[in-house]
Amino acid sequence: MDSKQSPRRRFLKNASVMAGLAVGATRSAGGQSLKSETSEARPKDLHAYGERSRFEKSSRIGSLGLWPPAAGPTRDYGFRTPLQNSVGIITPASLHFVLNHGQEPPDIDPRQHRLLIHGMVDRPLIFSLEDLQRLPSVSRLHFLECHGNSAMSAPNRALRIAETATVQDTHGLTSCSEWTGVLLSVLLREAGVQKGASWLLAEGADEVKHTKSIPLDKATDDVLLAYGQNGEALRPDQGYPLRLVVPGWQGISNVKWLRRIKLVDQPYMAMMETTRYPSLRPDGKSRWFESEHGPKSVITRPSGGQTLPGSGFYEITGLAWSGGGSVRRVEVSTDGGRTWKDAQLQDPIARKAHTRFRMDWNWNGTEAVLQSRCTDDQREVQPTLAELAKIWGVNMDYFQLAGTVDMGNFNAIHSWKVNRDGSIRNVPV
Amino acid sequence: MDSKQSPRRRFLKNASVMAGLAVGATRSAGGQSLKSETSEARPKDLHAYGERSRFEKSSRIGSLGLWPPAAGPTRDYGFRTPLQNSVGIITPASLHFVLNHGQEPPDIDPRQHRLLIHGMVDRPLIFSLEDLQRLPSVSRLHFLECHGNSAMSAPNRALRIAETATVQDTHGLTSCSEWTGVLLSVLLREAGVQKGASWLLAEGADEVKHTKSIPLDKATDDVLLAYGQNGEALRPDQGYPLRLVVPGWQGISNVKWLRRIKLVDQPYMAMMETTRYPSLRPDGKSRWFESEHGPKSVITRPSGGQTLPGSGFYEITGLAWSGGGSVRRVEVSTDGGRTWKDAQLQDPIARKAHTRFRMDWNWNGTEAVLQSRCTDDQREVQPTLAELAKIWGVNMDYFQLAGTVDMGNFNAIHSWKVNRDGSIRNVPV
Repeated sequence: MDSKQSPRRRFLKNASVMAGLAVGATRSAGGQSLKSETSEARPKDLHAYGERSRFEKSSRIGSLGLWPPAAGPTRDYGFRTPLQNSVGIITPASLHFVLNHGQEPPDIDPRQHRLLIHGMVDRPLIFSLEDLQRLPSVSRLHFLECHGNSAMSAPNRALRIAETATVQDTHGLTSCSEWTGVLLSVLLREAGVQKGASWLLAEGADEVKHTKSIPLDKATDDVLLAYGQNGEALRPDQGYPLRLVVPGWQGISNVKWLRRIKLVDQPYMAMMETTRYPSLRPDGKSRWFESEHGPKSVITRPSGGQTLPGSGFYEITGLAWSGGGSVRRVEVSTDGGRTWKDAQLQDPIARKAHTRFRMDWNWNGTEAVLQSRCTDDQREVQPTLAELAKIWGVNMDYFQLAGTVDMGNFNAIHSWKVNRDGSIRNVPV
Repeated sequence: MDSKQSPRRRFLKNASVMAGLAVGATRSAGGQSLKSETSEARPKDLHAYGERSRFEKSSRIGSLGLWPPAAGPTRDYGFRTPLQNSVGIITPASLHFVLNHGQEPPDIDPRQHRLLIHGMVDRPLIFSLEDLQRLPSVSRLHFLECHGNSAMSAPNRALRIAETATVQDTHGLTSCSEWTGVLLSVLLREAGVQKGASWLLAEGADEVKHTKSIPLDKATDDVLLAYGQNGEALRPDQGYPLRLVVPGWQGISNVKWLRRIKLVDQPYMAMMETTRYPSLRPDGKSRWFESEHGPKSVITRPSGGQTLPGSGFYEITGLAWSGGGSVRRVEVSTDGGRTWKDAQLQDPIARKAHTRFRMDWNWNGTEAVLQSRCTDDQREVQPTLAELAKIWGVNMDYFQLAGTVDMGNFNAIHSWKVNRDGSIRNVPV
């Protein structure tokens, strides 16, 4: 990308506007800011910011065994979304899954926060939050998903989790929000990407300075610098005050507490992308930068750990998503995949977002195995485990032996078994 | 509507399933329920349900002068959404506007809550929450709006508010959520509406037992019994555990803490709908049941009380909505309505939901008057004040003299004046 040849105009070409934006200069975050004079001056009251009912207990739970369980605290900091209680497609920010490679999120004062764009650019730039919020913005529904989500539902000796697992245990590392921010392409146009630049490094302000290499093609496609989530500022555990949203790609790419973007000419093999995220295959080769999530779905209700009080009518509902685009079709089976019926898809159906599906079901009281299968607008179909083995070029033993690190982007069809007594159990595929 | 002739099937026809649902019978809400066995059994931790950053102060504010300001506490209980800080179209539940005709919301245990459907029906029914959650559900983006929202921006001697007013003051009694629940038409089919029924009464469980008459045509069109809001249970101040959502209609119709629906053959002239909501016109006639909101929009940023730090590029953004359907077009003027440009509409554009609009603007540092104008898919156009006078059949004096009660569904174009120093002030139309 060469910004000088860009047909799209820059927004900051008026030098008098963005005085103070060049590297090295600083500007006051004082009284000249575009913010409300009024609401902060008024006294707080108990109704200023609401809370949920004391009867509601739906909660995130700690990420159990994402890596083989250890006696002490887990090495990573993770909390899973209670998908079994989800309705619609929005995940409340308070229940969005969390996976940090440090520990607690940093406590950042947004007035002090800066984003540096440098490296192979014509004009290195520093942006305050206020600067970013003046630029053209977009709001988009997108899911995020940890690359290890649902790997535990594989038939792996070490990772396999109990038949009492809930959908929170098996799939709780995905959530969906309405993100608001600036397209990264807008900022790169301001900075002027130099010829030869083909990747960027994105770095967070957390204690471990999480860093990720992202190819420039993706960066200029649909990557967002988000400061808003579901109508308000990002939450601290989602990268407050600024994060990358890299639609459809592994969670690791969506760098939180974003403070630096460096344009470079190759991937930099940062710590996490070299140690935890490549997938080792039986031929001894590692697959690197397998970033995009395939088509995937899971039934959230009825699901593992729930109990049907008796035969009769139930609605089967769940979530489907794909990193490749939008969900075109979801089929549901109640007989373990022998027969399938099309589920209804609920609007809005947005690109790289959760899509809610529903199907009416009359349970006759006998054993049933519930499955869902997603097809995306690229005509990619969510695979069975055997089909996934072919895609991965492995045999079925691989799933028994591989570590979580090697099970990234596991998207096989998931099964819930309904017993005669109405209890529902996880069926490791 | 005669359910016996309904071409659509009922879901509860299997008598063995819904044993216990007939009026008079009760059923245990005990261990047989369709709920998670797992998540509640686990110990809570600090990360179970997240909170926002300590640096975020965006807050609801008390409803100032919805009726002429009094010395004591206001007669109603209202809190306005900080639209000046809004991004996207989702309003966080914690910031959703509140307007109750009682005081604090009731503290309802959802396991004890019941909904009665009776009156002119074949089969009176009582539903628990759990019963409702087994039925086919829908999730829909819808705005709610108090009928008095923005009446204060009229040039009314008593109601007119200061030029320092923010968009929270002028328009903060509208919010938008993803609501999940059961279509009322589904329940009415179960109950079997008898011939001759043409209205229903909806009653809440709040201390004043707020009651509203709703015509059956609307009830069977798109009215929702919502138990979910933005991916979790309703908040107490939004009607937990069950409310009506009457898309596109005045807030008063969206009965919260819903406990009873009675099918009747006429409107019942309940207290609120006869005392606060009819509009008195100069000919001495009152207009009753003017329920549907017209096309409307407001610029949320830049807006009253904010300050532009200097000339140059800004994004003008705001919200548009219509009770008549979806937003088809939003135009923005920066010169007080002399010239207009089409704004960009952000997906998703949903029926009877807020739609986010945006327009690039280079401020040259001179005085400017910012306005927005919404056109809906019925080709209805948001009026100027003079046009609204014609629609209402009044002359301009009417706006000076009418009380808020008579100013319901005020949807005139709103103006923000940008002064040379960058300060932005409310311009009472």
